[in-house]
Amino acid sequence: MNMSLAGASLVYLDHNATTRPAPEVVTEMVDALELGWANPSSTHEPGQGARRLLADARTRVAAFLGCQGTELVFTSGATEANHMAVLGALEAARAASGGQRRRLVLSAVEHPGLLALARRLQGEGVPVDLIPVDTQGRLDLDAARALIRDDVALVSVMGANNETGVLMPVAELAALARAAGSLLHVDATQLLGKSRLHFASSGIDLMSVSAHKLHGPKGVGALVVRKGVVLPALLSGRQERNRRGGTENTPGIAGFAAACELARRTLDEDLARMTALRERLEDGLRAWPQVQVYGRQAARLPNTVCLRFGALDSDQVLNRLENAGVVASSGAACTAAGTQPSHVLLAMGESALHAKAGVRFSLGRETAAAEIQRALDAVARVIGPLLAPIETTAMAA
Amino acid sequence: MNMSLAGASLVYLDHNATTRPAPEVVTEMVDALELGWANPSSTHEPGQGARRLLADARTRVAAFLGCQGTELVFTSGATEANHMAVLGALEAARAASGGQRRRLVLSAVEHPGLLALARRLQGEGVPVDLIPVDTQGRLDLDAARALIRDDVALVSVMGANNETGVLMPVAELAALARAAGSLLHVDATQLLGKSRLHFASSGIDLMSVSAHKLHGPKGVGALVVRKGVVLPALLSGRQERNRRGGTENTPGIAGFAAACELARRTLDEDLARMTALRERLEDGLRAWPQVQVYGRQAARLPNTVCLRFGALDSDQVLNRLENAGVVASSGAACTAAGTQPSHVLLAMGESALHAKAGVRFSLGRETAAAEIQRALDAVARVIGPLLAPIETTAMAA
Repeated sequence: MNMSLAGASLVYLDHNATTRPAPEVVTEMVDALELGWANPSSTHEPGQGARRLLADARTRVAAFLGCQGTELVFTSGATEANHMAVLGALEAARAASGGQRRRLVLSAVEHPGLLALARRLQGEGVPVDLIPVDTQGRLDLDAARALIRDDVALVSVMGANNETGVLMPVAELAALARAAGSLLHVDATQLLGKSRLHFASSGIDLMSVSAHKLHGPKGVGALVVRKGVVLPALLSGRQERNRRGGTENTPGIAGFAAACELARRTLDEDLARMTALRERLEDGLRAWPQVQVYGRQAARLPNTVCLRFGALDSDQVLNRLENAGVVASSGAACTAAGTQPSHVLLAMGESALHAKAGVRFSLGRETAAAEIQRALDAVARVIGPLLAPIETTAMAA
Repeated sequence: MNMSLAGASLVYLDHNATTRPAPEVVTEMVDALELGWANPSSTHEPGQGARRLLADARTRVAAFLGCQGTELVFTSGATEANHMAVLGALEAARAASGGQRRRLVLSAVEHPGLLALARRLQGEGVPVDLIPVDTQGRLDLDAARALIRDDVALVSVMGANNETGVLMPVAELAALARAAGSLLHVDATQLLGKSRLHFASSGIDLMSVSAHKLHGPKGVGALVVRKGVVLPALLSGRQERNRRGGTENTPGIAGFAAACELARRTLDEDLARMTALRERLEDGLRAWPQVQVYGRQAARLPNTVCLRFGALDSDQVLNRLENAGVVASSGAACTAAGTQPSHVLLAMGESALHAKAGVRFSLGRETAAAEIQRALDAVARVIGPLLAPIETTAMAA
């Protein structure tokens, strides 16, 4: 889709960082702000109206995620949901096992926010293990099998890696976790709208989701808590059936519901279109022999291609592309401000030099074929000369 | 202001539960949703535009609160801010004192969400003391002096009680806390837009605020952390200077900023108008000899009157008033669904019977003189007969 910026139109290929709120989302939010603004905890009719709005939104989000409404705990986003899942599962397991079950198992390529939490917990004495990945970014299931034992409180992985798009083997992990008596938490942020996610049949116990990766608003998400799983609250209070305190973010939740409803309606079409356009982009880029696509042999999200142009530093590539009207990203937006090599690419065995060269193009529902062509033209024009300086310079002269 | 409901217009006197988002707030939120929707952590220009939006909002919220922009940590609301303050201060004090400083001191009339957190902490071994209040709802400063000793990690009080509007002696508590080497946290949710709050000169170390009590949106608030106070994050991550992880809720924060700017501009006028109208309402209601106003001798918020009509159950009073077009509340909205007597009124020495009779009228910026008259007329029409059944029935016959 075209993001208008100072008069120029940009090709936005950074949908894994965030997406544009859909018009339907904005409309529902404005309605909630202007009409449904009372406190859902108030017993008077305006309050009960806000409560109905919330119940209606819950039904629509649950329908999209394939869970029951009562399994949904609305949060301020995936980060809060991840904290609630990890801290809650550890506390519940510790209490239930008399301290015997307290290990946390993650993948080595988790989101920096979750890895930061894991480091904090490790500092507090929680044993933490990281499951390695192979050169394609695929989780090492043999290693997972060895690590997921009966002292594990929680296995926590992202559904798909935000940088490479490589999918995690959720069904296999669910089986391993169940056999070991552990819970499985999946941060499904990157799966929403990019896969046929169905909580009920997934084997997942706890699932984090975020609205803003799905053309919903920022500041809202949810933790799906499988029926029967008892989890202490992260924020104490009466709301969300005593599972999450604080006045409910009704406009955000309404916007989330609108985004889910839209995504549910367009999912088949979206998946087909993104797959086709991503292939066109990837094939076009692979015409340059210096281009190395990460995770190409792995099962990946249909919208993501992560690659390097030889050993060109990603900052240089991204600056040139942006000047040519195309925005993409180097790894997670949340670490993009830093100049650290990607921990994901390092975990895949890349050198530090190459791990600073990773460029991620992530497509969205609104990405058009013409934009893919513009991106390919831009690469040819502004990156090509860096890849093959002699011939290209000669041609341009 | 008139809340239109099924064609009828209601007099909304429940502003302590929540307020209507101002039109300026909705406009800024829509702009942020439609134009400033990129991820503020992204290095490309759309991301940097979102980052500028965030910086601009921070400046405007800080200007209203009387703090520095760097002292603001945006959160999902006051509940999260309260948790961050309480859990963070306890953890920091424990680490710094080798476990010697670990006591938590609250008032007996805190918000149910905070009391729930305190109970949870008590269950984990944290010593918790509650400072009592007198029959007017005023904090017992002698008791506070005796409790705030050098083993106290944090003193945490609400700036004004949400049910009665009675103000807490913040300056005195700040002096006591400072002398004891403790931090002072104030949940200032109810002070915003109803007092001349100025963080820098308040002596407060940690202050929670919420946008939706100030005609801003739900789902956003902040913890103000005094410069020099080091507090561990509740949600790990890189955002908010490593103090609060998670993609920033840019539309919510923009709306919060718009609400602050508006409140800053209209504060003098708002305080004067609410004071005058509250006095008119209170005087009118006190004409009934059965009416007992809570905290009448205490310093109170200018917008709140909490009272009982003899021993009439609040549910009955509120139902009748709502049928007559006036909505108010019994105590905190967050406990309104229950039938428990108000813990605040019990702490003030009321009987359980009377503590179930408390009715709160809370005015707002939009409350008009005609609405106060409508409320008084409604009381006379639908509550009056219950207060003086014989004479009134005779007159009506």
